[in-house]
Amino acid sequence: MSDESRPLLVDRTPFPDGLDERLHAQFTFLVEIDRLKTILRQSPLVAAERRENDAEHSWHLAMMVPLLAEYADEPIDVGHTVQLVLLHDLVEIYAGDTPLYDPAAGVDQAERETVAADELFGLLPEDQGRRLRELWDEFEERRTPEARFAKAMDRLQPLLLNWMARGGTWRTPGVTADDVRARKAVIGDASAELWKAGRLLIDEGERRGWSRSGSGNA
Amino acid sequence: MSDESRPLLVDRTPFPDGLDERLHAQFTFLVEIDRLKTILRQSPLVAAERRENDAEHSWHLAMMVPLLAEYADEPIDVGHTVQLVLLHDLVEIYAGDTPLYDPAAGVDQAERETVAADELFGLLPEDQGRRLRELWDEFEERRTPEARFAKAMDRLQPLLLNWMARGGTWRTPGVTADDVRARKAVIGDASAELWKAGRLLIDEGERRGWSRSGSGNA
Repeated sequence: MSDESRPLLVDRTPFPDGLDERLHAQFTFLVEIDRLKTILRQSPLVAAERRENDAEHSWHLAMMVPLLAEYADEPIDVGHTVQLVLLHDLVEIYAGDTPLYDPAAGVDQAERETVAADELFGLLPEDQGRRLRELWDEFEERRTPEARFAKAMDRLQPLLLNWMARGGTWRTPGVTADDVRARKAVIGDASAELWKAGRLLIDEGERRGWSRSGSGNA
Repeated sequence: MSDESRPLLVDRTPFPDGLDERLHAQFTFLVEIDRLKTILRQSPLVAAERRENDAEHSWHLAMMVPLLAEYADEPIDVGHTVQLVLLHDLVEIYAGDTPLYDPAAGVDQAERETVAADELFGLLPEDQGRRLRELWDEFEERRTPEARFAKAMDRLQPLLLNWMARGGTWRTPGVTADDVRARKAVIGDASAELWKAGRLLIDEGERRGWSRSGSGNA
């Protein structure tokens, strides 16, 4: 699956001779991840009339973690959680964004993202590539309190953006308020308090007609 | 100087009744900082034909810190340094970006940014606002190894972008390679190794005509 000949951004302006080999690998990776700024998400920004990109989203999550960590149901290491949110979407550089409300897009998501992770983290010196891969696996597997809290931030942040947009992606055709509640419920795996707040916004949005009422909900 | 009546982003879609007061303040701040995604810097992206914004820039620095911390001349706390880079540009939400090579723009920068900090961090619950203000002051004052390393990342990242753009802001009229070296020299306050690499790129850029040769340099 991996395309061995994928051109790297750094190939456009190769670094000069004389750059230390390890630093060369690190700079190559750091230039390549500039691509995250071009991966568009579905969520609309609050402050401008355009969609958010993955780098902006990741920064926003990283700002949320220390401010909202006090609501975590289990103690979390804030710095570690920040690391997880900073890199959680990196694989989308090669695998693309998978919209939350598009079941078809999720079918081969895991496989595409694993290939992307091998390729992207493989640009780094081996020890650092392995470290980032472990962090990404941790986020994906959600076995640690930090990974669950990171995932909660990943769901809560677009919820805030959608609230501000009076619907946003909640208005996606075919999506109901029940679907939104189902997709966002993982917030509750990390924090009952934050999920209570998230529910309040989703329920009130439904009441105002910003999402289509699903059957059998409050 | 402070405009008491500055409209907040959250005023466009106020949160519903029933949201806890502390969480209300935290969400208000988290929505307001969406503005960082609209503050444009001078640096050109590598991956797209546009300028970088502050949120993307801050995310990029946060990715650099753990990967390049091994080059710090003094031991640094990586998580703390990440916190500093994530918030270092927040005051530009109200104070605007101050271009590195524009001496006039820097004249009242400190005053504008202090007013902005009072206003922005004042949106948070008092304890958290104070905490973020302390972190921002630490970054500005550069008294700690973490603040010096954060500043080095802030200078090194656009250096990589400018290298990739074969000049970028190095081509600003009136700016010479000596000016670039002078502005970037703070990298050496945190890491001799990274400053050596930075110098290599600047010197090679000058040799290739991507910046105007200043007098008296190598």
